[in-house]
Amino acid sequence: MQLYIYFLGTGGSWPSVQRNVSAVAVKRGGEVILFDCGEGTQRQIQRSQLSYMQIKSIFITHYHGDHFLGLPGFIQTLQLNDREEPLHIYGPKGTKRIVETIIRLGYFRPSYEIHAHELHPGDSIRFEGYCVRCIDACHNVPSLAYSLEEDVRPGKFNKKRALELGVPEGRLFSQLQHGKEVEVNGTVVTPDMVLGPPRPGRKITISGDTKPCPQLVEFARGSDVLIHDATFESSLEEKAREYGHSTARQAAEIAQKAEVGTLFLTHISPRYRDASVLEKEAQEIFPSSHAASDFMEFEVKLKK
Amino acid sequence: MQLYIYFLGTGGSWPSVQRNVSAVAVKRGGEVILFDCGEGTQRQIQRSQLSYMQIKSIFITHYHGDHFLGLPGFIQTLQLNDREEPLHIYGPKGTKRIVETIIRLGYFRPSYEIHAHELHPGDSIRFEGYCVRCIDACHNVPSLAYSLEEDVRPGKFNKKRALELGVPEGRLFSQLQHGKEVEVNGTVVTPDMVLGPPRPGRKITISGDTKPCPQLVEFARGSDVLIHDATFESSLEEKAREYGHSTARQAAEIAQKAEVGTLFLTHISPRYRDASVLEKEAQEIFPSSHAASDFMEFEVKLKK
Repeated sequence: MQLYIYFLGTGGSWPSVQRNVSAVAVKRGGEVILFDCGEGTQRQIQRSQLSYMQIKSIFITHYHGDHFLGLPGFIQTLQLNDREEPLHIYGPKGTKRIVETIIRLGYFRPSYEIHAHELHPGDSIRFEGYCVRCIDACHNVPSLAYSLEEDVRPGKFNKKRALELGVPEGRLFSQLQHGKEVEVNGTVVTPDMVLGPPRPGRKITISGDTKPCPQLVEFARGSDVLIHDATFESSLEEKAREYGHSTARQAAEIAQKAEVGTLFLTHISPRYRDASVLEKEAQEIFPSSHAASDFMEFEVKLKK
Repeated sequence: MQLYIYFLGTGGSWPSVQRNVSAVAVKRGGEVILFDCGEGTQRQIQRSQLSYMQIKSIFITHYHGDHFLGLPGFIQTLQLNDREEPLHIYGPKGTKRIVETIIRLGYFRPSYEIHAHELHPGDSIRFEGYCVRCIDACHNVPSLAYSLEEDVRPGKFNKKRALELGVPEGRLFSQLQHGKEVEVNGTVVTPDMVLGPPRPGRKITISGDTKPCPQLVEFARGSDVLIHDATFESSLEEKAREYGHSTARQAAEIAQKAEVGTLFLTHISPRYRDASVLEKEAQEIFPSSHAASDFMEFEVKLKK
């Protein structure tokens, strides 16, 4: 199943001509999950390959305006486009009250179901084939980091070994691949005899706004992709600390410690028209670093 | 003094790739007034010639999402950019409650003054050199139409006549031009002896969302520019009526009856990627009709 990341808003604090405020979509098969929904996200979606009708769930990291003020317009536009399917909005404490407020702004009453869910660090939300987990990030207001983690896949099927054991190709192969034992000429063949070790699914971690956060290293460990706050360059480390943000270098240090595959720098301050200074700084620590930009797409490939 | 109209969002109901939702700015000298502030307006301003720090007053026509959901982000961005000057937000009934709600969305507390003003039909707000007036439009929720009307200018100065009356060029000319009488060789010369009839200032009328609205004809009479709801084409007149909107033809009929200078069609439905069908329909009734588009600028010139 294909797994894509779409960067919809990669700027921090307020929008600029170059970057909209925070939003990143993850598309797995035909299902889209949105992480954060800054003002203007519905229009960014229109400008992307995505359809906002595919979005079933939105995870908000925290309630600074640049991360959620696109929700009311998004919710209302879904309704004007005859949404019938429920929408689920997840976030840290305060989510129920805020969602209740924003879905009733002005002359609007939702005609489809909108469910607000308040998450606690350690919570895990199950979806078909993957889950979304959260922990506390290290920001100056309650803020969650999220990971999307696919279920473990069965180990690789050893066809040669199966044939040696007398299992004929066909239905019995399939049963073994799905973890069921089979009987061949009175002998039981168990899956562990023909399957390699279980293979981990893909993993994406999204820091949200955060200072360098010790618990994020373990949380992000082994991610294929880490999307991390990199608001400033190193020379502004003090300013980053003051506002609860990270520098590009600090983001790269987290990526290195967590042994992730690829790092994307995001929440880039409007002061940077060109983020190459941030990218370069991160690459010195962690070579597979990229400054995310609006409408950038990235396919997270299955490990062989 | 120069008077410009900047169309920032000319689409109706929800944004499209072509058009953002409602917002139009009027710049007079160095002062900018915003009429409506749909989601994403702050970014549209960034993409225009305007600076959002010049905006002192925002007039909201009504509280459908596409006309005001850009307010919270706009307000917060002003603060992040060290706004100190007060901001005034005017609108129909409900304005105080809604402004109170949106300026406290999420972790935000305003540090500059934000004043909400509820207007009633017939109200007139005075500014230096012009006023903004309002009446009820004909929409399906309380909705105001606005006009911006410059003060009457003194009549044209008849230099030849003044010299004939023995007034020497210089200080006394200036006094007469400013409406003061002067004495020359023991004879009193009054302004009416050397000034033509008072000349009207420029006038811009903004319908907001509305069905064809009888009282709007008188309200808009003689406007240099009328910016009018033209959500649909004539073949969708029934749909327009159902949702409290106008067709392009109906907008043109209002423009014709009100004897305005120029008509701009706005609040164009996202179904029209190309609004030329609307423009053509309006021009058949009122030749000086234009479909507004995002980032279009129009200078309202002084009548000679």
